[in-house]
Amino acid sequence: MHERELTAYLDECRALVLDEIRAIVARQHAGGPNDGFLYDLMLDYPLRDAKGLRPALCVATCRALGGKLEAVVRSAAVLELYHNAFLIHDDIEDESLVRRGRPTLHREHGVPIAVNVGDAMLALSLQPLLDNVETIGLGPALRTLRAVARMTRESVEGQAIELDWVRRGSLDDADAQALDELGDADYVRMVEGKTCWYSFITPIEVGAIAAGASTAILDELREFARVLGVAFQIQDDLLNLAGEIGSYGKEIGGDLWEGKRTLILLHCMRCANPAERAEIRVILAKPRPAALERPSELEGLLTALVERGELSGSGRDAILERLGQVGQGGQLGTASRGCKTEADVQRLFALIHAQGSLDYARAFARAGLLDARARLAACQRFMPASVHREFLTSLVDYVFARER
Amino acid sequence: MHERELTAYLDECRALVLDEIRAIVARQHAGGPNDGFLYDLMLDYPLRDAKGLRPALCVATCRALGGKLEAVVRSAAVLELYHNAFLIHDDIEDESLVRRGRPTLHREHGVPIAVNVGDAMLALSLQPLLDNVETIGLGPALRTLRAVARMTRESVEGQAIELDWVRRGSLDDADAQALDELGDADYVRMVEGKTCWYSFITPIEVGAIAAGASTAILDELREFARVLGVAFQIQDDLLNLAGEIGSYGKEIGGDLWEGKRTLILLHCMRCANPAERAEIRVILAKPRPAALERPSELEGLLTALVERGELSGSGRDAILERLGQVGQGGQLGTASRGCKTEADVQRLFALIHAQGSLDYARAFARAGLLDARARLAACQRFMPASVHREFLTSLVDYVFARER
Repeated sequence: MHERELTAYLDECRALVLDEIRAIVARQHAGGPNDGFLYDLMLDYPLRDAKGLRPALCVATCRALGGKLEAVVRSAAVLELYHNAFLIHDDIEDESLVRRGRPTLHREHGVPIAVNVGDAMLALSLQPLLDNVETIGLGPALRTLRAVARMTRESVEGQAIELDWVRRGSLDDADAQALDELGDADYVRMVEGKTCWYSFITPIEVGAIAAGASTAILDELREFARVLGVAFQIQDDLLNLAGEIGSYGKEIGGDLWEGKRTLILLHCMRCANPAERAEIRVILAKPRPAALERPSELEGLLTALVERGELSGSGRDAILERLGQVGQGGQLGTASRGCKTEADVQRLFALIHAQGSLDYARAFARAGLLDARARLAACQRFMPASVHREFLTSLVDYVFARER
Repeated sequence: MHERELTAYLDECRALVLDEIRAIVARQHAGGPNDGFLYDLMLDYPLRDAKGLRPALCVATCRALGGKLEAVVRSAAVLELYHNAFLIHDDIEDESLVRRGRPTLHREHGVPIAVNVGDAMLALSLQPLLDNVETIGLGPALRTLRAVARMTRESVEGQAIELDWVRRGSLDDADAQALDELGDADYVRMVEGKTCWYSFITPIEVGAIAAGASTAILDELREFARVLGVAFQIQDDLLNLAGEIGSYGKEIGGDLWEGKRTLILLHCMRCANPAERAEIRVILAKPRPAALERPSELEGLLTALVERGELSGSGRDAILERLGQVGQGGQLGTASRGCKTEADVQRLFALIHAQGSLDYARAFARAGLLDARARLAACQRFMPASVHREFLTSLVDYVFARER
């Protein structure tokens, strides 16, 4: 499948799923007294420019296995709602600034409203899955519900592991030291939870359930999805460091600002000498500057006050240091220390480049993609040739292409 | 039922439900790679000192209708998990400082971890409801799932209405003016969503479903629950203004700091003269000071700098004003203005007292409680005398007692 056809397939699935999401939201809206504010915001992330990978994976798997479109669209829409709800909460948790080329929801409307919009999307997701009983039958409907229950559990667990690493990395004790022991297997386990389930395993599984696939086939497809998902996340980590705004839609280097332990960073720390490792640890331990200060709004004011002779230089530093104590989400820091600076992040970049950690991660992802390709080829036993199977194959190649 | 027996009944139900919650969390933990941090935090709110109203309502309704304890405990535990997940997210949304006599979860562990812990509790809640199929049968299990789906939708909708009022109240345009039109019916509708469903309607409904109650009985019980819930929330609003720390466990006057439109405040604005009304509007429009500044940590530093001659007075004001722009959850404010002060909140208190708005709200709640009592008495047709029915009756009286 050429890139144009691949894109057309993605777009078509995305359009189908967005129509279904609009219908789910409108049904709820019709029953409620709200003035529409909540409902508009629930559609905000889903309607932003996106590839629509998950809906397409779900639909293509169902149809490649001989299932009908009507059997899968509603569940695919629910998965996309869940995905976007997680994105809203993840963006709050990671203090991300940009999502799909626009400010994150909590930056535009505040954390309170963003938390509630995410919850609202999760809340809307249960009823359509119950309605599945009437359309795809009791057995598949319950299997789909179980798959979604598993997905949400695995996702929050993966997210918890990563948040816990960030939290411990900001400490200065034995708990933080233990992070030096983290290996590639720990990273893979975290990513399986954080990314693979909701982006790959469950969309593919739910598509297969809608097509009435056997347990053995479900197992085989899940394993393909898991391997593909890990490779995809590593590519994502690479893009986070190497991409350009515009083409990627997220902020660049955000993982480093957030102090995330990616495969790249774990490799860099393993290969660095003790002094460099200590240096990296100190930088990672610094909190990310709060959103307000990053665009240096307050800093500009303080500088102006210093220039006008209304504030001493040491007073300026004391104020910035005090504000630096407000790290993640307004939590009061435990130690008096400054935030990460542009220079800190540049230094991490330099160390990562020096250790060849990007090449290492590229090779790691490449091995995973070859594995995924072989696994999908093996699935051809029960998946006859079709445009849908072709889409799945091309998608693996597309993930390859993201690497280059 | 005397208060001691009522308390014993509440405690017993709470203990049963907490055991079940521990089992649900432990089952998930056994399957996951996490080090327990996430799981400890999921139990944090549930294990804090609480009355356990919802579990008791659920269990008592089931048993008063002749249902078995085993049929309802798991669902009651799930409702309690949902309730505590909502509390965590509500505390973030309302920027609350204290919950059940201790700092809120996001104050202790930061917003990112608190958002994820709430999500994790929601994620854990689906599987036990699916397991219900095996224990209480397919029909009741699906009815319970539908009841929970409705509950979550209504709750986020109610929360959205309130957040929207707070948001619009902080603006200075026609959208804010429209808030002056809000009447008691709007408040009741908001409270039905925000409180009644997850605290009263669904616990009672799920208990009745577990006992195999008919649709007609479910309708009657839901209406009783709705009426009781509205009265309960008004009492809660009164306690928020009138209570003392220690006996209540939340911060006092928090609703005023947050700019919430309670029945009390709506009455006060209706009765106030135009000048007072404008004054109230201006105070409500001010953002709540961020948690950091409230204990005046930064203010103390700035004052010290001014005293040492390192900062001018006007520079100090400019810094505070700039920081005041960061309102709810770090969102950048639209106008340059200061935060609510202690004096502002005292002024609101005074106006509320002057208009007799507390007495009005007390009378409103009392009418609702009398209605609830009558409705429960009518339910005696299908609810034979038992300790469980007696508990429900005593509970209505207990809500009365909170009033005094």
